Amino acid sequence: MAAHTSRTGDPFDNAEPATKSRTGNEKRATRAKRATSYDVALLAGVSQSAVSRALSPGAYISLELRDKVLAAASQLSYQPNAMARGLSTSRSRVVALFMPNSSNPIYPFVLQNFNERLRKVGRQVQLLPPVISANEALAGMLQYQVDGLVITAASPLALSKAITRRCLAADIPVVLFNRYFQDLRVSSISCDNARAGAIAADLLFAAGHRHFAFIGGPERTSTHIDRCKGFVARLEALGAAKPLMESVPYNYDGGYAAAMRLFSRKDRPDALFCANDMLAIGAQDAARLGCGMKVPRDVSIIGFDGAPMAAWAGNSLTTFQMRVDEMVERAVEQLMLAIERGPVAPQRIKVASELVIRGSAQIPKGFDVSTANRRD
Amino acid sequence: MAAHTSRTGDPFDNAEPATKSRTGNEKRATRAKRATSYDVALLAGVSQSAVSRALSPGAYISLELRDKVLAAASQLSYQPNAMARGLSTSRSRVVALFMPNSSNPIYPFVLQNFNERLRKVGRQVQLLPPVISANEALAGMLQYQVDGLVITAASPLALSKAITRRCLAADIPVVLFNRYFQDLRVSSISCDNARAGAIAADLLFAAGHRHFAFIGGPERTSTHIDRCKGFVARLEALGAAKPLMESVPYNYDGGYAAAMRLFSRKDRPDALFCANDMLAIGAQDAARLGCGMKVPRDVSIIGFDGAPMAAWAGNSLTTFQMRVDEMVERAVEQLMLAIERGPVAPQRIKVASELVIRGSAQIPKGFDVSTANRRD
Repeated sequence: MAAHTSRTGDPFDNAEPATKSRTGNEKRATRAKRATSYDVALLAGVSQSAVSRALSPGAYISLELRDKVLAAASQLSYQPNAMARGLSTSRSRVVALFMPNSSNPIYPFVLQNFNERLRKVGRQVQLLPPVISANEALAGMLQYQVDGLVITAASPLALSKAITRRCLAADIPVVLFNRYFQDLRVSSISCDNARAGAIAADLLFAAGHRHFAFIGGPERTSTHIDRCKGFVARLEALGAAKPLMESVPYNYDGGYAAAMRLFSRKDRPDALFCANDMLAIGAQDAARLGCGMKVPRDVSIIGFDGAPMAAWAGNSLTTFQMRVDEMVERAVEQLMLAIERGPVAPQRIKVASELVIRGSAQIPKGFDVSTANRRD
Repeated sequence: MAAHTSRTGDPFDNAEPATKSRTGNEKRATRAKRATSYDVALLAGVSQSAVSRALSPGAYISLELRDKVLAAASQLSYQPNAMARGLSTSRSRVVALFMPNSSNPIYPFVLQNFNERLRKVGRQVQLLPPVISANEALAGMLQYQVDGLVITAASPLALSKAITRRCLAADIPVVLFNRYFQDLRVSSISCDNARAGAIAADLLFAAGHRHFAFIGGPERTSTHIDRCKGFVARLEALGAAKPLMESVPYNYDGGYAAAMRLFSRKDRPDALFCANDMLAIGAQDAARLGCGMKVPRDVSIIGFDGAPMAAWAGNSLTTFQMRVDEMVERAVEQLMLAIERGPVAPQRIKVASELVIRGSAQIPKGFDVSTANRRD
């Protein structure tokens, strides 16, 4: 499997220094002088009972008071006793999953895969509730003594990052799924997005297209950035004009609206690479139904993810299929390593997606899909 | 809210007698002479250590031995101590959800709704793993001391029924979501499926159609049975010919294949009612792309569920939108009643779905959708 992933160099060249508690010796030192609930109460200026209630979901406490306690607990790297026991001896055997958004139809399969694979290692999946703050997320994880956390890309970016930081500080193992943060040292599993972007550029250019556009999601997500980067860089290498760019919510309506804008321009594009399938299906409907264009005669469209709807006869979308099964396998591997052996060197793992040729994009003469999908 | 649901008469007329432990007095009696792990070991003819391992996921024990122990535990209504404590004092504050299938895109929204609503009552959602037997499911629920279980229709029928029986016997509160079992006394929340079937018949008949077909899912599911029953009964009342019937898996391919069969007949139907949106979208693609028909000129198609894809411009599916939010609200109400107050009289609750008119079915002159959707 190693051959299928890329781990060349230190992927964290730009990352901020590791938090103190991530190195073995210092971590043990931290544990030796573990803070007590009394220390937390003292620092927060509240009663010990308030500390206890702040860490018990469902217990009556004002949000303000809870925030005060959690800030102090975080500052002291405080872990409630139950959690401390959980870390050293018995565990909850529960892995939390953060996946509050349900708009991308690939995620039910991600969830099903995690559910199946975690069962095989004796763990059950608990959903992190749709929390509004990293403090609340941390309180829940401590209360339920979860073994670790998987944060998927189907979650708000800034909140996910804040939760990741809090977990790192509290020594709760975290793995990011289909996302990574440039500046945080935490294991992640992503598609090989830049490579896919380059393949899309190759395919569309070789088919004779010269007017390109990229329809992406929110601009700061790693999926958007890397898929875009690979596409743009390869087009530049091929000597093509810069693609037009759209950044919209990752859904059908976003894709439809972006494509309507693009097709209303004088320099309307004849080749679209979309950062997910919902965007691509929306863009295709905009082309056909909104603008009376024929696909792929008037415009070629390529998506990303391999959602089931891409295979429907009415969509027949050429797309990059995420290898969900393999990605989840690697994510569970990384998480279980951290759970069972303690802090590990974080890995930024890329799993290649698979180009699936259907009817939405013109195919260059002599194009060989197996070459595009060769994993080496 | 009461006005929106129907609870007339005893919905359990045909149900088997309640299990002994469901009545208050006898339940207390059962608890007084609670079986111990020694009793279970004796009956199963195994060691007490084997009993303990059989109830601990991840512990090494043969499947054969575990089955033997679980059979004995079930016979004696044995509950491990941790579970017994959980029932009487502190609770795990976890609700298990059984939803192993991911093919219907309405279920991510069901999951998100449960996650949000259970958070409000201080509970977290744990997924029941993709178990292969009711014994395994029960062992997991005992081990994790879940407060209760929601079984959704996105799960195998026979297995779900077996799990429900085991939960009833073990006094674990259960609520069925989008499904019920005719012969089990357990609370359930469903759409008002028969009513929707009748409305579909009215609409299609009034639009002038006379050749009807019903494309359903597996024949023994309550969604199939009730949607079909309401459709067929109303057509009969209108004096129409019996509809042609198809029963296929609840997905796009099933709908496509069923429609291709129907449209290849000499007496090809001109009006389809499909038991879910994936079937309807598949049927519509079969009509357009497989048979060169125009929708709704040549055939009217109505779906069920209100999946996001039904609203896509390329599908524009007339459908019955499940009120997921209200259904989940009622399900959580029922479950929390049972969790907090002990055994309650089971309710079979129906929540009306909402007819949403789009482009896939001809609309009769003067048709008033608000009349069809009136909830009284």
